[in-house]
Amino acid sequence: MAMVCLSDFEAYAKKHLPKIAWDFFAAGADDCSTRDENILAYKRIRFRPRMLRDVSEMDIRTKLLGTEISFPVGIAPTGFHQLAWPEGEKSTARAATAMNTCYIASTYSTCTLEEIAAAAPGGFRWFQLYIHRNRAVSKQLVQRAEALGFQGLVLTADLPYTGKRRDDIRNGFCLPPHMKLKNLEGAFEGDDRSEYGLPPNSLDPSVTWNDIYWLRSLTHLPIIIKGILTKEDAELAVRHGVQGIIVSNHGGRQLDGGPATIDALVEVVEAVQGKIEVYLDGGIRKGSDILKALALGAKCVFIGRPALWGLAYKGEEGLQDVLRILQDEFRLSMALAGCASVSEIGRHLVQFSKL
Amino acid sequence: MAMVCLSDFEAYAKKHLPKIAWDFFAAGADDCSTRDENILAYKRIRFRPRMLRDVSEMDIRTKLLGTEISFPVGIAPTGFHQLAWPEGEKSTARAATAMNTCYIASTYSTCTLEEIAAAAPGGFRWFQLYIHRNRAVSKQLVQRAEALGFQGLVLTADLPYTGKRRDDIRNGFCLPPHMKLKNLEGAFEGDDRSEYGLPPNSLDPSVTWNDIYWLRSLTHLPIIIKGILTKEDAELAVRHGVQGIIVSNHGGRQLDGGPATIDALVEVVEAVQGKIEVYLDGGIRKGSDILKALALGAKCVFIGRPALWGLAYKGEEGLQDVLRILQDEFRLSMALAGCASVSEIGRHLVQFSKL
Amino acid sequence: MAMVCLSDFEAYAKKHLPKIAWDFFAAGADDCSTRDENILAYKRIRFRPRMLRDVSEMDIRTKLLGTEISFPVGIAPTGFHQLAWPEGEKSTARAATAMNTCYIASTYSTCTLEEIAAAAPGGFRWFQLYIHRNRAVSKQLVQRAEALGFQGLVLTADLPYTGKRRDDIRNGFCLPPHMKLKNLEGAFEGDDRSEYGLPPNSLDPSVTWNDIYWLRSLTHLPIIIKGILTKEDAELAVRHGVQGIIVSNHGGRQLDGGPATIDALVEVVEAVQGKIEVYLDGGIRKGSDILKALALGAKCVFIGRPALWGLAYKGEEGLQDVLRILQDEFRLSMALAGCASVSEIGRHLVQFSKL
Amino acid sequence: MAMVCLSDFEAYAKKHLPKIAWDFFAAGADDCSTRDENILAYKRIRFRPRMLRDVSEMDIRTKLLGTEISFPVGIAPTGFHQLAWPEGEKSTARAATAMNTCYIASTYSTCTLEEIAAAAPGGFRWFQLYIHRNRAVSKQLVQRAEALGFQGLVLTADLPYTGKRRDDIRNGFCLPPHMKLKNLEGAFEGDDRSEYGLPPNSLDPSVTWNDIYWLRSLTHLPIIIKGILTKEDAELAVRHGVQGIIVSNHGGRQLDGGPATIDALVEVVEAVQGKIEVYLDGGIRKGSDILKALALGAKCVFIGRPALWGLAYKGEEGLQDVLRILQDEFRLSMALAGCASVSEIGRHLVQFSKL
Repeated sequence: MAMVCLSDFEAYAKKHLPKIAWDFFAAGADDCSTRDENILAYKRIRFRPRMLRDVSEMDIRTKLLGTEISFPVGIAPTGFHQLAWPEGEKSTARAATAMNTCYIASTYSTCTLEEIAAAAPGGFRWFQLYIHRNRAVSKQLVQRAEALGFQGLVLTADLPYTGKRRDDIRNGFCLPPHMKLKNLEGAFEGDDRSEYGLPPNSLDPSVTWNDIYWLRSLTHLPIIIKGILTKEDAELAVRHGVQGIIVSNHGGRQLDGGPATIDALVEVVEAVQGKIEVYLDGGIRKGSDILKALALGAKCVFIGRPALWGLAYKGEEGLQDVLRILQDEFRLSMALAGCASVSEIGRHLVQFSKL
Repeated sequence: MAMVCLSDFEAYAKKHLPKIAWDFFAAGADDCSTRDENILAYKRIRFRPRMLRDVSEMDIRTKLLGTEISFPVGIAPTGFHQLAWPEGEKSTARAATAMNTCYIASTYSTCTLEEIAAAAPGGFRWFQLYIHRNRAVSKQLVQRAEALGFQGLVLTADLPYTGKRRDDIRNGFCLPPHMKLKNLEGAFEGDDRSEYGLPPNSLDPSVTWNDIYWLRSLTHLPIIIKGILTKEDAELAVRHGVQGIIVSNHGGRQLDGGPATIDALVEVVEAVQGKIEVYLDGGIRKGSDILKALALGAKCVFIGRPALWGLAYKGEEGLQDVLRILQDEFRLSMALAGCASVSEIGRHLVQFSKL
Repeated sequence: MAMVCLSDFEAYAKKHLPKIAWDFFAAGADDCSTRDENILAYKRIRFRPRMLRDVSEMDIRTKLLGTEISFPVGIAPTGFHQLAWPEGEKSTARAATAMNTCYIASTYSTCTLEEIAAAAPGGFRWFQLYIHRNRAVSKQLVQRAEALGFQGLVLTADLPYTGKRRDDIRNGFCLPPHMKLKNLEGAFEGDDRSEYGLPPNSLDPSVTWNDIYWLRSLTHLPIIIKGILTKEDAELAVRHGVQGIIVSNHGGRQLDGGPATIDALVEVVEAVQGKIEVYLDGGIRKGSDILKALALGAKCVFIGRPALWGLAYKGEEGLQDVLRILQDEFRLSMALAGCASVSEIGRHLVQFSKL
Repeated sequence: MAMVCLSDFEAYAKKHLPKIAWDFFAAGADDCSTRDENILAYKRIRFRPRMLRDVSEMDIRTKLLGTEISFPVGIAPTGFHQLAWPEGEKSTARAATAMNTCYIASTYSTCTLEEIAAAAPGGFRWFQLYIHRNRAVSKQLVQRAEALGFQGLVLTADLPYTGKRRDDIRNGFCLPPHMKLKNLEGAFEGDDRSEYGLPPNSLDPSVTWNDIYWLRSLTHLPIIIKGILTKEDAELAVRHGVQGIIVSNHGGRQLDGGPATIDALVEVVEAVQGKIEVYLDGGIRKGSDILKALALGAKCVFIGRPALWGLAYKGEEGLQDVLRILQDEFRLSMALAGCASVSEIGRHLVQFSKL
């Protein structure tokens, strides 16, 4: 079977992964309406493509907080990559580095940050943080990441509690015995690891904007906040001095009924007024989705599930295939829309369909 | 089979109830478009969730006309609970009391008000009234309810005649011989009980707003009017001195083609201007539906069919399961939307999708 | 099988009629989108029902140009009733008279006007006219109808040529040998009757508004024009002195892509400003559809295909069943919407859904 | 099987063509959403038909840049007609000439321009040009076409690179050995013909508006630019002195996510303000689609896939069948909308549905 577009990787993963793992990656909260809206919303955006512009030399590079990447697609933080491929996050790191883009490693990795760093030396990586009730755990993680050369700290803001994913409950999802949340080994007492590999209630639901100052006190890394969906919170992010926002609804896995990220992007970009960078994850399935997100003001997008499908297909190599397809499709979409470089992409390029 | 969400109870009830009973509970009028709209309308409302708010201590309690309940979900009045479970309304009363919420007992109960009151002493209950042509029957019911400690009188306003429910006609629906409308025994002459357990045309289609004054003369109980769908009627309700409104279309069983209750809620809340409490029933299937209704101004919602599914599953215990699931889902939705108590829920939390 | 609603009659007719006859009655032009829109459009109109109004005495009568009918539903002109029932239009006339409503007999009847008149003496009937190239034919028809006691002349305006109904072409539709367009026997030369029972091109596509004056010169009957869909034409109708308009798209059988009649009704009613009566046909399938049409300004509606389904079921008796169901449903819808008589029905009763 | 409407030809072609050829003709880019939107968009446009206008004499002729054609439908440029019928573009030319309309021959024809011209002497034809990196190739083509009597030069503007058509990639689409891009034989070095019959990257992606002046220097033919979708580009087209615009998205084969052509037509027509002629291709499937396009300002439409279906059915004869059906349907739609000649068609005839 030819791997022509991302749906081919999705079909492969669905067929070859154990059901419990597929269900975990695919899961959305409740009725999965937000998960599905993330994708449907792109179909309501129409291009206004421009013709007869010289697109013989295409430049699809961009910069994330000053660091150049080969094209505006990075790897979003997702957990448990060993569920998709034995080498887990080490493969992810190698693929991202080979393709010269940014990989946001998750707190919930099944490899240590040290293993990740060693797997692909010199790679451009950010570290994603959940704040635990035991703040010492979080502090130690941040400082380990900084010491290992991670270049940004991504704070996930939308998970004070875990969303209700029906299939995981039905499946009684838990990590297979040979997999561990390796970065958190020894961090918690007792043996109960029933909540996605951690003791129940280990995350801190009392985190507020003031904790940005606490994080700032721990590290020199730029702070990017992930999970913002409203202009009010976007303004608060700017006011609290973070360096970037990832517009995200956690792949539709947290509050079902929230907006598609591409819809929320518009009000966040307007609120931020260019003061900090805005990124997006959720629903990116083809090159033209990337172009739409950039046209609406995202500096870069991140892929979650498609990266896992790539890993499930052929590990590092499969993820590179996924990235390469997106890269080719994005370049082609830009050219067909009349843009020779990302700096030519703008709001004029799209309109919202009235449907 | 794990009972994870309300759809699981629905599937169970559909599978295990006699078809004639399932059809009766499921029925909508005519093409069932209003029944189905009640549910679809929630999908067009999007949350605007707020992040990084301290949601470590959640308070989901509210008050109905001053009486505290454990969370803003009560049991709507529905008839014939013995069709779902042998103990009928006694089980309903026990479950509601165990969960510390309000149960609106129907005129069309298959247990007497006395049995209901005795089944769960001290429970918080309202009594739902249809006004009969024989006003003495209605007067006696109201006064019995008040004497038994029911704390509110709910007048159903949308049933001057019974809606046309095609399946009931095809099935020749009637109560099994061992079930009776026990609260109305001896109230009517003759043997014909062909209209849902009553003689034909026993309800009074001449009831008007002036009859509120008549009800007021019969009882000291607060009067809540059920079935209001327009701002004009909401204003009349305020003007006639009732204490509350339940925005309801009778589960889509009366006039097909009317609005979804969540859509009608907006104009009713605006018209009432906070002078009396506004509740809603219809289409509540998960915790986030409750949150949407509260964000649009409902003080509380009531569940009809889901309560019957719970009864059909395991009687009192099954209904508690249903309520507990809704409670957990509601608490989680609130937290994920950034609200630690119901007082923080407001209009800012939702927007209507343009779709 | 119980005959509970009009869909039951439709299913019966589809099952029992010869395919060629069913297809002919069911046919729409081209892709049938206007035919289907006629029905779908009702689903986008929502009631704003009013509660607690005395609906104990219901009056559903109305008047057509001064003549009282039992409820605001008449029989639209459709051709070839013998395809549905052996007695054809004689049965139709009897049913309409028995139910005390108006029957518009078609030029394309398979019974003579004389037979129709004799079948139900004293019935309230209008005559529907196509203008033929041979004007003498049309003149003679109008004068026969007037002499026979028909009380109105309905000019069909939307058929200068016959619409393209694919199934009729595929089926090679033609009348069975024992059926004739009886009112036109002897009117045309030659033997070719290939266009729906007439010689090709016998209708006159040069008819214009000036021909209203010609019709006026032929008869004292009130003239009703059928097939108007725009405000411009509605104004022309008023200016040319007709007595009524039937908003119609010929059941979606002529120009595919035109508006649903219930949508077009709004602009026609506005344009007419109450100067003449406005009626509607197309898409009426239940009592609440009638209520919506009246709320939007129609004085009365006419049913086409449902009348044929009733005939196909049991002739005169079946059509009475259809009318009785509509009558009951209409009365109930009115009551549930809070209207005790047709004079209380108004624009306030409905709103267009944004969907 | 009767060939009643264009869908019948589509079904025939799908059944009888080799899958690889059918897929190539049917292909859209990526998810095919723009391809499908081209058709769906017509369903959202409603006629406002006018009645009682004399339509006994119908005149459906129009003119393209001064040359009369029998009705406002021409043949859009599509490649590889021999995939549909052995005689290829010679049959196409004969059918177009027989029906007295315009045929735009593609650069990617499988017959030479000389063969095309000889097949139907005196036919009205335009030549469609892709500009190659080797400009001498393009120059020679233009001058050959002019010398052979082609009356217009159509520059395709939306293909700096070929769109991503998944099925062609899966099928490994290439021309069968006995077919050649005959007009380009000898034009390129080497043997690689893997990109739709040409060497990879032979088209010039650096073409800009300035190249219009270069084309103008090569030929006296009027220049028509194909692929414009925005008002900005429409204004540029006027400013650069072209004679016509074809609003086109290449049948949805280039940038997926662009607008339906019938939607884009509106803004292009407004921008052009009547200074040059505007045409459209994409999604025309029945006569009423043509009427909608003309009502929105197109001077003429062109058919792509339907022409190929006609060829696949019976070559020249099949294509004439297709054109004749469209002609009959268009004439009928005009008459039913109240227009006796194309000059009576205007914006007043249509409205956009709010759906």
